[in-house]
Amino acid sequence: MADKTGREVLAATDDEYGGVIVHMNEYELMDSATFLSSLTSSIAHRKLQGKKGVWIKLPIQHVNLVEAAVKQGFWYHHAEPNYLMLVYWIPKSAHTLPENATHRLGIGAFLINQIREALVVQEKGGQYRGTGVWKLPTGAVDEGEDIYAAAVREVKEETGIDSEFIEILAFRQMHKSFFEKSDLFFLCMLRPLSFDIQKQEQEIEAAKWMPFEEYAAQPFVQKFELLKYLHDICKAKIDGNYTGFSPIPTTSYSVEKSYLYLSGTNAPKRHSKL
Amino acid sequence: MADKTGREVLAATDDEYGGVIVHMNEYELMDSATFLSSLTSSIAHRKLQGKKGVWIKLPIQHVNLVEAAVKQGFWYHHAEPNYLMLVYWIPKSAHTLPENATHRLGIGAFLINQIREALVVQEKGGQYRGTGVWKLPTGAVDEGEDIYAAAVREVKEETGIDSEFIEILAFRQMHKSFFEKSDLFFLCMLRPLSFDIQKQEQEIEAAKWMPFEEYAAQPFVQKFELLKYLHDICKAKIDGNYTGFSPIPTTSYSVEKSYLYLSGTNAPKRHSKL
Repeated sequence: MADKTGREVLAATDDEYGGVIVHMNEYELMDSATFLSSLTSSIAHRKLQGKKGVWIKLPIQHVNLVEAAVKQGFWYHHAEPNYLMLVYWIPKSAHTLPENATHRLGIGAFLINQIREALVVQEKGGQYRGTGVWKLPTGAVDEGEDIYAAAVREVKEETGIDSEFIEILAFRQMHKSFFEKSDLFFLCMLRPLSFDIQKQEQEIEAAKWMPFEEYAAQPFVQKFELLKYLHDICKAKIDGNYTGFSPIPTTSYSVEKSYLYLSGTNAPKRHSKL
Repeated sequence: MADKTGREVLAATDDEYGGVIVHMNEYELMDSATFLSSLTSSIAHRKLQGKKGVWIKLPIQHVNLVEAAVKQGFWYHHAEPNYLMLVYWIPKSAHTLPENATHRLGIGAFLINQIREALVVQEKGGQYRGTGVWKLPTGAVDEGEDIYAAAVREVKEETGIDSEFIEILAFRQMHKSFFEKSDLFFLCMLRPLSFDIQKQEQEIEAAKWMPFEEYAAQPFVQKFELLKYLHDICKAKIDGNYTGFSPIPTTSYSVEKSYLYLSGTNAPKRHSKL
């Protein structure tokens, strides 16, 4: 597209905060001189429009344009494997751009059968590889995934067990778990809907139902304060003395449904099982 | 540094997962041909060492080297305003590199005084600017900050009120709140330790203690299902019928202390107040 004086400016869509987003995946590969020229015109054009933030979502194929953008005053906002998000702030005032994501999420799954046995695994990798330690199934919450859904999915993937999410028993926030980023680990209670284990070959060395007291008596559980706490919570839960947070679907400003986790709700469990 | 054949390789430190990290901030600015030569030697060198992942933390001043790294097979892992983290996987197998951060965290603070008035604010910006809506103080959790500490800090910043953290009443997970990233919003209960409001000039239009029922009767609270739920939780809490999650400090594998949030703990509240 061109501005009023006929100069080429980069096509962009408005965001909700008075800014614009340039999606460079809509462009063929170009040389950096051509890009720089369009970029200069674009900033002038957006300034006249009274815009504030200018975002450029730059696919990794356009890596030859990163230097030109930074020399023009853009900086990095965030990156994913296949793109870099650059941003520029037009007003003279301090920017009010949103912060980048700071946390990764993980889950641990606590399932118990009718004879008080917990579902446990031995992992092929990680710090307990080859140690004989039995641990609860754990895993990462994927981008865009609900916490409860991640717990059900990981249990199914690692052990083949179908389950229904009951509640989040506790969670831990840990800093600098990965460079400067933090971690939230959610201990989740699930009800098993099947009992025959089909372990995953890639990550899991072994999986079984193990008497809960035997699981808890392992030295590695006793060694770490955190694991002792988590064990106490699990024990209180199966003894009927503990209430965690359950998810209920709700809506707010956006049309999208999102989950609210709250204590001991009597609201119907309307979430769909995976 | 040089490898055994005398070729220049980039100095790096080992990570805990069989990889190495190159900190380019330790280098003077260089041209991309020099960098490319060192990078090629470095990968060969690290491969011989049996290393897996090669990370390059590239300060934005070194932006001229991004293209060379990507053409060598590196891709983006994450970025912050002042650096780009690139990564390369040496083995032929699928990589087992950690995922990037996926969530931002925010807090809302619920404080009530002795006469059942809630601490509320009107914001100068945001979607309720100029609408006369009174809302609970809210804010973002900073990188590396504990959730409970963020709640105490935001209340102090916005209203001048000192407070003690009591518990997380509920939290909501919302997707695509910011590009592809998700959001966790924690509704927190705090006990006020002072009552004279000193509002912040920059972000806050007005702040006051408002009868809880008057706050809850505002049309915007009644309009959204989420806010009605949150109101019900606050009401149950002040009526003594609700228990959220409280933080207790704990340790695990790492030396660093981290906080475990769990229900109705009788553990002493050992966390320090800000």
